[in-house]
Amino acid sequence: MQVTDYMRQLGQQARTAARIVAAADTGVKNRALLAIASAIDSSREVIIAANQKDLQAGEQSGLDAALLDRLALTPERIDGMIEGLHQVASLADPVGAISDLNYRPSGIQVGKMRVPLGVVGIIYESRPNVTVEAASLCLKSGNAAILRGGSEALNSNQALAACLRTGLAEAGLPETAVQVLEITDRAAVGELITMPEYVDVVVPRGGKGLIERIANDATVTVIKHLDGICHVYIDDEADAEKAIAITLNAKTHRYGTCNTMETLLVAESRAEELLPPIAELLVEKGVELRGCPRTRQVLNGAVAATDEDWATEYLAPILSVRVVQGLDEAMAHIEQYSSRHTESIITENYTTARRFLREVDSSSVMVNASTRFADGFEYGLGAEIGISTDKIHARGPVGLEGLTSQKYVVLGDGHIRQ
Amino acid sequence: MQVTDYMRQLGQQARTAARIVAAADTGVKNRALLAIASAIDSSREVIIAANQKDLQAGEQSGLDAALLDRLALTPERIDGMIEGLHQVASLADPVGAISDLNYRPSGIQVGKMRVPLGVVGIIYESRPNVTVEAASLCLKSGNAAILRGGSEALNSNQALAACLRTGLAEAGLPETAVQVLEITDRAAVGELITMPEYVDVVVPRGGKGLIERIANDATVTVIKHLDGICHVYIDDEADAEKAIAITLNAKTHRYGTCNTMETLLVAESRAEELLPPIAELLVEKGVELRGCPRTRQVLNGAVAATDEDWATEYLAPILSVRVVQGLDEAMAHIEQYSSRHTESIITENYTTARRFLREVDSSSVMVNASTRFADGFEYGLGAEIGISTDKIHARGPVGLEGLTSQKYVVLGDGHIRQ
Repeated sequence: MQVTDYMRQLGQQARTAARIVAAADTGVKNRALLAIASAIDSSREVIIAANQKDLQAGEQSGLDAALLDRLALTPERIDGMIEGLHQVASLADPVGAISDLNYRPSGIQVGKMRVPLGVVGIIYESRPNVTVEAASLCLKSGNAAILRGGSEALNSNQALAACLRTGLAEAGLPETAVQVLEITDRAAVGELITMPEYVDVVVPRGGKGLIERIANDATVTVIKHLDGICHVYIDDEADAEKAIAITLNAKTHRYGTCNTMETLLVAESRAEELLPPIAELLVEKGVELRGCPRTRQVLNGAVAATDEDWATEYLAPILSVRVVQGLDEAMAHIEQYSSRHTESIITENYTTARRFLREVDSSSVMVNASTRFADGFEYGLGAEIGISTDKIHARGPVGLEGLTSQKYVVLGDGHIRQ
Repeated sequence: MQVTDYMRQLGQQARTAARIVAAADTGVKNRALLAIASAIDSSREVIIAANQKDLQAGEQSGLDAALLDRLALTPERIDGMIEGLHQVASLADPVGAISDLNYRPSGIQVGKMRVPLGVVGIIYESRPNVTVEAASLCLKSGNAAILRGGSEALNSNQALAACLRTGLAEAGLPETAVQVLEITDRAAVGELITMPEYVDVVVPRGGKGLIERIANDATVTVIKHLDGICHVYIDDEADAEKAIAITLNAKTHRYGTCNTMETLLVAESRAEELLPPIAELLVEKGVELRGCPRTRQVLNGAVAATDEDWATEYLAPILSVRVVQGLDEAMAHIEQYSSRHTESIITENYTTARRFLREVDSSSVMVNASTRFADGFEYGLGAEIGISTDKIHARGPVGLEGLTSQKYVVLGDGHIRQ
């Protein structure tokens, strides 16, 4: 079959299944999630055997160690998938929730009901866990899903797809409610993102290059995460202890995550006091510092930061540091270089904090907290399909609610418009 | 200047102004709205003279009477614009509203703050009133606006743009917060919808053809309204009086509006009882009926409806009528032919009403109320920039809130992630 025909068939099946999943009771969806968990539990050997095939093929084709690690399914990772399914089953069902139901002067009642988006496409890379995670979030939010994993994980994903089908069927839901692509043809992605008649939204997960390509070519709405160039600004009135602790945590808690601080901004009035102890702790952890001229006066060891440094998401033990005059210069720097992911200010000044919260235009804006908190679990969403750096529809960590929309419901009693 | 350069300059100016408008106090924005109202009031002669120019040019170029009527600015319409500005000034400011601010187990507080989208582009046709209406909604919601009106209204729109600038300046806001295009070159629209670096969202208002073209070509997010093929379904358990009153109102209150009923579905068990009196009242008002075979058995006068009729937004005194077996067939018809704008069920049955509300996937779903209620004012939004038939971001009538987004705010006290 041609890729186009194959994808359109998947799309049609998803569209049909979406109506059924949208109307499914919470109990039915939860039963499906738990049945998928059971199916995975009793298919451990099959899943691991399929994963071994992928790992061997990956080794032969020269995948690097980090990629092979992400690809590997250990017994612990299978436990994690099962645990994740139980967690999503225990989350509140967003579908059908009615809010703001009020009487209007005409006598009608008007409210908003949360409804699924319809069909969600997910495009991701090597980690096969994402197959189960994405499927569970789409299902719980009442959406049908089309999943396109990495070609290197094809066998693992197919083994997991069989478990998904088993669980859906056991709960009486259509097996086509979650479809995992059986082909690795790159053209399939091109089709998936240009079938608005069958797909309502696409969530790409992966490198920035992939996501930019998808966003450019898509005619379907894309919920996307580009990069995380996150800032911490130490204000004139920062508490020294909090400034040091948060800076250290925001940079060194994890280096490769999108909510890791990449640039530290320090008010001139505090630079001589705070930069040396911060630098000492960071250098001790092996972090390379790249500074503006003023930073390098204070810290003799720092390399000179270039304009490119301010615009770089290192995802590595490197930090760019700039001394600024104060709040306005800090916000201007953020406006120019931030990827609008997460920014935090360290200050005890009420008015300064209030301005920063209001004026900084990023998906998460924090006061006296580590940027590492920007995360669906930390925010209480229960689960996360991704973090959006867009402003439209969903912004910041995207949980079940981000996979839904709201329609108006109107209740009358024979009301006509005058 | 080239169109591209002109549009990019507008875009840059809008981006700069957007920051200032986003941070502006509610009082400042309201002062600007009232100052614009005063400027319009004291420029009545200039505005009407400019409008006369447009009307004369329109007559010479052979615009039809309906278009000339929409283009005309009478003293009453100017009163309406002034009144509209006062109304928008009196609406609550959505910007900065924080919701769901809760403590998390880690100790941080997490909430969501409503923020402007940034720069909104509006593309519309002959009615110059839209210039003021769109400007006021963008301004109140903290956005900068770029407005592209119809070429036939150029002089009227420029006269109004001068009032906008006066009012903005009086309140101390940048005049570039609302920019009305001074050129009518069609290429300008192409630029406006493909500058994501300067424009965050585009709202096209006009015919379906225009909107489809814009949606296809845009790389910027489009909040769009395609058509309104709205249904009323008279259920087996409908109250006869309500069914007749609502059907009449939904079809004949206004013929040319998007929330007018275009197809009536009637349960077989009620067809012989209800179709004749409904038909009599509709025919009396001059409505042409086009029916399915069963409808034509009951109503001898009805023309045969073709498959195209079910998919047509008449915007005229024509109604297609179909007899269905019951709720499921009605919902299947709606699923197939509706433009997902507004559907209403007439029933006294609790369970049937509950299923219709949950399962019908349209921007407004009603019970025992006329489709004509689907409107921002009737819903209590205070004002309306348009009605969205999309599912993403904004659905149904779009008011101030639809021109905003939410960012996460995190309040800590030195919190670091464990």
